[in-house]
Amino acid sequence: MLLKVLEFVGVVAFAASGSLVAVSKRLDFFGVCLIGVFTAIGGGVLRDVLLGITPPTSLNTWKFFTTALLTSIVVFFAHAAVRRLRREILVLDAVGMGLFASSGATIALDHGASSQAAMLIGATTAIGGGVLRDILVNEMPLLLHRDLYAIPALIGSTVVVAWSALGLNLNTGLVVGTVSASVLRLLALWRKWNLPAPRQVDDG
Amino acid sequence: MLLKVLEFVGVVAFAASGSLVAVSKRLDFFGVCLIGVFTAIGGGVLRDVLLGITPPTSLNTWKFFTTALLTSIVVFFAHAAVRRLRREILVLDAVGMGLFASSGATIALDHGASSQAAMLIGATTAIGGGVLRDILVNEMPLLLHRDLYAIPALIGSTVVVAWSALGLNLNTGLVVGTVSASVLRLLALWRKWNLPAPRQVDDG
Amino acid sequence: MLLKVLEFVGVVAFAASGSLVAVSKRLDFFGVCLIGVFTAIGGGVLRDVLLGITPPTSLNTWKFFTTALLTSIVVFFAHAAVRRLRREILVLDAVGMGLFASSGATIALDHGASSQAAMLIGATTAIGGGVLRDILVNEMPLLLHRDLYAIPALIGSTVVVAWSALGLNLNTGLVVGTVSASVLRLLALWRKWNLPAPRQVDDG
Repeated sequence: MLLKVLEFVGVVAFAASGSLVAVSKRLDFFGVCLIGVFTAIGGGVLRDVLLGITPPTSLNTWKFFTTALLTSIVVFFAHAAVRRLRREILVLDAVGMGLFASSGATIALDHGASSQAAMLIGATTAIGGGVLRDILVNEMPLLLHRDLYAIPALIGSTVVVAWSALGLNLNTGLVVGTVSASVLRLLALWRKWNLPAPRQVDDG
Repeated sequence: MLLKVLEFVGVVAFAASGSLVAVSKRLDFFGVCLIGVFTAIGGGVLRDVLLGITPPTSLNTWKFFTTALLTSIVVFFAHAAVRRLRREILVLDAVGMGLFASSGATIALDHGASSQAAMLIGATTAIGGGVLRDILVNEMPLLLHRDLYAIPALIGSTVVVAWSALGLNLNTGLVVGTVSASVLRLLALWRKWNLPAPRQVDDG
Repeated sequence: MLLKVLEFVGVVAFAASGSLVAVSKRLDFFGVCLIGVFTAIGGGVLRDVLLGITPPTSLNTWKFFTTALLTSIVVFFAHAAVRRLRREILVLDAVGMGLFASSGATIALDHGASSQAAMLIGATTAIGGGVLRDILVNEMPLLLHRDLYAIPALIGSTVVVAWSALGLNLNTGLVVGTVSASVLRLLALWRKWNLPAPRQVDDG
């Protein structure tokens, strides 16, 4: 039940972050809605394509799509107000990311993925939407050069896979995975953690 | 029968628009052919991957691929002449877009997609090739910030879905969907319709 | 057996080329690993998605993924040394490309692809990783405007398809396809062959 609520929280946060980027790129009404919706459900669509779940669940059911669309429309008309909530959106986004990584890994295991594939596909569910957003607005994906985002996602999906390998209850694993990923992401934001960049590249 | 002819018209128009973009980016012979073919059949490949039709029809049958390839080769060698037909290509492109959106929605319904998924996958069939083209040549997709293109596509696929929900003849629906989408697109081109962009974004 | 070894050679060379690009873009540790891994296994993932092999083999088995990841980590820490091996990497990359094109075509034929689809999907297996790499680092794919890379890949997959159509032994076809593609690629590198670009584009 709580997970159902969190799923919507995640969709709203992802759609808001996507449509805010689109607004700052001065896209038109359709562009803002498209980027918002893609950011919110793109990771789930990638997950389903990789697992052979066709048509993808998030296209086939109306809940996520409609939630993402309405969020993007609100952002289009009230982006100044929404932008003031940036910090709150980042927190909700962290929760959504953790949940998508963990539930993505669970769904992958259910569809015959190996442990490794479930870890990778879980993380893809969480980060795929943001990567598609950045590709569409013609930016290098943020998570490649800033922002500790993908590591927390990988940790969330890994926790779920380990939980399942140990034969423990999967619902608990989903909760523990979500919490681990979200807390790590929030710590990284709060402490401005970054991964090291390569030293001196002007050689050769 | 008419639809079969229009399908080729659409493939030719899409391949021509793609390869013209590639020529203006000064790509080499292979690049021009690749972008032309991708623009023409990319939307269909995306549709088939989303519906689990593998290998995708447009890769598996030679008609569309060969048509797109020949068109791109012609454009490579005669791009100056083809460019003079720009206006005619835009009209044919509108017809192709309408048909791909409508037939994409029909195929999606046939493969168990919900109404919403059929609308979205139909529109994806029509706009996917152009989006892939723009991503490959490293431009922000045109339809995100200019050009009323995606809305007509969505309307075409929606007409087909509504037609099917009402239990009416699907062939007629395909024609009505194609005509609605194409006419709307041509009106948008003729009247230079645009969607609104967000107001003042330099806040926050 | 030789083919098994060559497969790893290809994965290492692809991962090295991808992570070197990432280093020169100054991505962080995760970004370098992600681009390295994507370049190495992205083509195989695309192949599997196009053929309906889900979850994709290269996500589901640990050998390729782990090899690509370790290679990327080595490049991150020792990129200056690796860069000095650039020429050697190009040679290994040519071998990997030939093998991936040929084995991709074989796998496609095994999964019911037509001759044309097998040629295209084989080539996609070989060039897909590099195209994804360039899209992710926000560059126009190299093979669109420089580098004779895709034509050798297409020739490799075509040799395999022709071999199979003639009813000859597929293992031999795999070897002949790999050698043809690799030798052509090396010749192109050595002789600096390029495809023609379109003449005068400033018309219209």
